[in-house]
Amino acid sequence: MFVRLSFVAALLIGLAFAPAKPRRVIFFGDSITQAGVKPGGYISRLTEMLGKQNKGADYELIGAGIGGNKVYDLFLRMDDDVLAKKPDLVFVYIGVNDVWHKRTHGTGTDPDKFLKFYEAIIRKLQAANAKVVLCTPAVIGEKTDFSNEQDGDLNQYSTMIRELAKRQNLPLCDLRQAFLDYNLKNNPENKASGILTTDRVHLNDTGNQFVADLMMKYL
Amino acid sequence: MFVRLSFVAALLIGLAFAPAKPRRVIFFGDSITQAGVKPGGYISRLTEMLGKQNKGADYELIGAGIGGNKVYDLFLRMDDDVLAKKPDLVFVYIGVNDVWHKRTHGTGTDPDKFLKFYEAIIRKLQAANAKVVLCTPAVIGEKTDFSNEQDGDLNQYSTMIRELAKRQNLPLCDLRQAFLDYNLKNNPENKASGILTTDRVHLNDTGNQFVADLMMKYL
Amino acid sequence: MFVRLSFVAALLIGLAFAPAKPRRVIFFGDSITQAGVKPGGYISRLTEMLGKQNKGADYELIGAGIGGNKVYDLFLRMDDDVLAKKPDLVFVYIGVNDVWHKRTHGTGTDPDKFLKFYEAIIRKLQAANAKVVLCTPAVIGEKTDFSNEQDGDLNQYSTMIRELAKRQNLPLCDLRQAFLDYNLKNNPENKASGILTTDRVHLNDTGNQFVADLMMKYL
Amino acid sequence: MFVRLSFVAALLIGLAFAPAKPRRVIFFGDSITQAGVKPGGYISRLTEMLGKQNKGADYELIGAGIGGNKVYDLFLRMDDDVLAKKPDLVFVYIGVNDVWHKRTHGTGTDPDKFLKFYEAIIRKLQAANAKVVLCTPAVIGEKTDFSNEQDGDLNQYSTMIRELAKRQNLPLCDLRQAFLDYNLKNNPENKASGILTTDRVHLNDTGNQFVADLMMKYL
Repeated sequence: MFVRLSFVAALLIGLAFAPAKPRRVIFFGDSITQAGVKPGGYISRLTEMLGKQNKGADYELIGAGIGGNKVYDLFLRMDDDVLAKKPDLVFVYIGVNDVWHKRTHGTGTDPDKFLKFYEAIIRKLQAANAKVVLCTPAVIGEKTDFSNEQDGDLNQYSTMIRELAKRQNLPLCDLRQAFLDYNLKNNPENKASGILTTDRVHLNDTGNQFVADLMMKYL
Repeated sequence: MFVRLSFVAALLIGLAFAPAKPRRVIFFGDSITQAGVKPGGYISRLTEMLGKQNKGADYELIGAGIGGNKVYDLFLRMDDDVLAKKPDLVFVYIGVNDVWHKRTHGTGTDPDKFLKFYEAIIRKLQAANAKVVLCTPAVIGEKTDFSNEQDGDLNQYSTMIRELAKRQNLPLCDLRQAFLDYNLKNNPENKASGILTTDRVHLNDTGNQFVADLMMKYL
Repeated sequence: MFVRLSFVAALLIGLAFAPAKPRRVIFFGDSITQAGVKPGGYISRLTEMLGKQNKGADYELIGAGIGGNKVYDLFLRMDDDVLAKKPDLVFVYIGVNDVWHKRTHGTGTDPDKFLKFYEAIIRKLQAANAKVVLCTPAVIGEKTDFSNEQDGDLNQYSTMIRELAKRQNLPLCDLRQAFLDYNLKNNPENKASGILTTDRVHLNDTGNQFVADLMMKYL
Repeated sequence: MFVRLSFVAALLIGLAFAPAKPRRVIFFGDSITQAGVKPGGYISRLTEMLGKQNKGADYELIGAGIGGNKVYDLFLRMDDDVLAKKPDLVFVYIGVNDVWHKRTHGTGTDPDKFLKFYEAIIRKLQAANAKVVLCTPAVIGEKTDFSNEQDGDLNQYSTMIRELAKRQNLPLCDLRQAFLDYNLKNNPENKASGILTTDRVHLNDTGNQFVADLMMKYL
C-alpha cells in the first residue's frame, strides 16, 4: 500500500517538474528563409527575442528554407523537411520565385497551379496536426508607386493567399501589406531597394527585424 | 493702274474666300489606333465630333496604327507613314506591346531602349515641324487593385513618358491615369475587362468615346 | 471423400477457366495523352490493336492525361489518378509543356527540377510495384533542320530522360528520336506541322497511329 | 613656262606617290564586336594580320559594337556610328541578343521584325554606297548535339540571314555554320563553353582568331 502510494506521488511530482516539450515551429520557404537562420536572420532574431522573454525553452524554431524554391518545391520536399520533424506550427512563406522567375528564367508558376499546390501543402500539414500560418510574399522591389515591374503579379498572388486564409479561416501574416505600409512611411525617395531589402528581394537587417516582429505575434 | 488695283483686289478676295488648309493630325500607334479608324473607333468619333462642331473642314485626322507595333516599329516606319504626310500634329500612342509582349512572346522592349526610341521619334517629328502629344499606354487589364499582371511594368513605362513630357515641356494625354480614375469609379467589381476594353487591352465603345473625349482637348 | 475430390476438381476447373486479371496500363501525361482516349487517339488505337490480336481481355488501358500538365502536376495528382488504380505498368509521357510554357507563359520548368520531380514520380511508382516506361517529349514543331524555336531545349530535356532511363535501367520509348527519324524521311519540305501533328505539338491521325505502334512494343 | 611645267610635274609626281585612300571597313554589332577592338579581339587581330601582309595602309578597320545591341539598336544608331564615317565595307554581325534576351529579359526580337530591320539596315548601307557582308550569329552555347537551350531559335534566325544573303546576292560570313563545324571536330566532350567562347557567347582567344580568319576572306 505504501509502495503504491509513493509510486503515484513520484509520478505526480515527476509530471509537475518535467520540462514541457517545447513548441516546434518550422519556417518553410525559399532563400529569404534560408538566410533567416544565419546570424541576424529573422529566425535567429526570433530565437533571441524569445530568449530575452525567458521563453527560450518553450520554443524550438527550425528553418526549412531553400534558395530558388517555389510552391511546388515545398510540396516535393515537405515529407522529409517538415512532416518528419513533427512540427506544431508551420509558417508557409513562399511566392516570390513563383512570380519572379517568370521574367528571369521563364519558369514561374501559373496562378491556378500556385493555389493548387498551396492548398495541397496546407492539407498535408493539417493532416499531420500542424497549425499553419500563411505569409504573403513581401516584395520584388520596394518602390511605393506600384511601378516595380512585377507588382501587379505579386499583388495577384498575395490576394490569392489572403483569400485562401479567409476561406480556410487560417492566420495570415500579410508581409506584403506590412512592407508596403512601411515603405510608404520610410521610403520617400521611391527607392527600389535599401529600405527593408538589400537587393529588392532579400532582407537587410531592418527587414529581418521587421519580419521577426511581425511573425512573433503568431507564435 | 486699274489692272494693278483689280489684281490686288482679286488677290485679297481670293485669300478671303480660299479655304484654310486643314490641320493635319496623325494618330501614330498600334492595334488600338488601327481600330480607331473603323466605325465607332476613337478617330472616327473625333472626326464626327469635329463635324458636329462645324470644324470638319479645319481638321484632317489620319490613323497610322499597325497591330503589334512597339516603339521601335514606329521609328522604322515613321518616314513613310508620318513624315511623308507632313502632319501638323502627331499623337504618339504606344507602349502596350512593349510591355505586354515580354510575357506573351518574350519580345518586349527594355525600358532604357523604349525611352531612347521614343526620344528619337520626338526629335524627328519636331525636326519636321510637327507638334507632338505624348500618350501613356492605358491598360493591360482594368482591375483597380493593382493586381493586373503587368501593372507594375506598365506604370514604369507610363512614368517614363510622363517624365519625358515634363522634361521636354510637351503636352501629355495621360490615358493610363484617366483609365484608372474611370475604373475606380465605374468598376466596383474589380473586373479585368468590359469597362473600357473588350479584352483587357482593346477599346470597347465606351473606351473609344472616352479616348476621343480625352484627345479632343489637344486638337 | 467424394465431396472433397469433387471440390478440388471444381477448384482446379475454376482456376483454369477463370479469366486472368488483365494487365492494367496507365498512360500518364498531358493534353496529348488526354486526347489519346478519344476515338482515333493513340490509346484508343492501342485498345483496338490489342482486340484484333485477341488480347483484348489481357489488358486494361487507362488514360490519365490532363491538358497543360507539367512534370510537377503529375507528381501532385499521381496518388489519386495513378496509384489508387494499382497499375501494373505506367507510361510517363511528359515534358512538352515544361519546355513550351517557358516561352508562352513564362511558367516552364527548370531542368534540374524537371529531373527531380521525374525521379520522384518513378520512385513512387516503383514503390507501388508498377513497371515504368519513360517517353521523351516528341516535338514542338516538326521542322527537320533543328530550327524549331525550342528544339535545343527540348533536346536537353529529352537527353535528361534518356540518361535517366539508362541510369536506372528503365525502358525508354524515345518518341523524340522516332519523330525526328520519321520527319527526316517524310517531311522533305521542312514543314512545322502537318506530318505527325496538327499544330506542331498535338498528334494527327498519322501521329496517333505512329505513337500507338511505338508504344505497343512495351506492352 | 618653266614654272608651269615644274608645277604640273610636281602635281603628277604628287599624285603618283600619294598614298591611296585606305579602304574603310566598319564592324557593326554587339558586345562581341565591342570586345573585338580590344587587344586580342578579332578586329585587332585583323589589323595585325593586315600589317604583317604589308597591307596596313590599305585598310582602316573600325569597330562599331555596343553591348546588348539587337538589330533595331543598330538601325537607330547607324547614321551616327556608321554612315557618318562613310565606310566602304560594313560587316553586319548581329542576332545573338535578339534571340538570347527572349529568355533572359523577355525582350528579344520577333523573327519577322528581325528581318524587317535587317533589310532596312542593308538598304541604308547600300544607298550610301557601302558594300555589306552579312554574318550569322555564332553561338549561344557550344554543345554539338543541338541541346543548347536556344539552338532552334538561333538556327531559325541564321537561316533567315542566309536566305536574305542569297535573295539579295550579298556575301555571307556564316559564323554559325563555321562554329558548329569547328566544335564537331574540337569539342568531343560536348562542352557548353571553353572551345571558341569563354561563356557560351563571347569569344576567347581561339574564337577571336577564328572569327578574324573567317572575316579576312571578305576584306
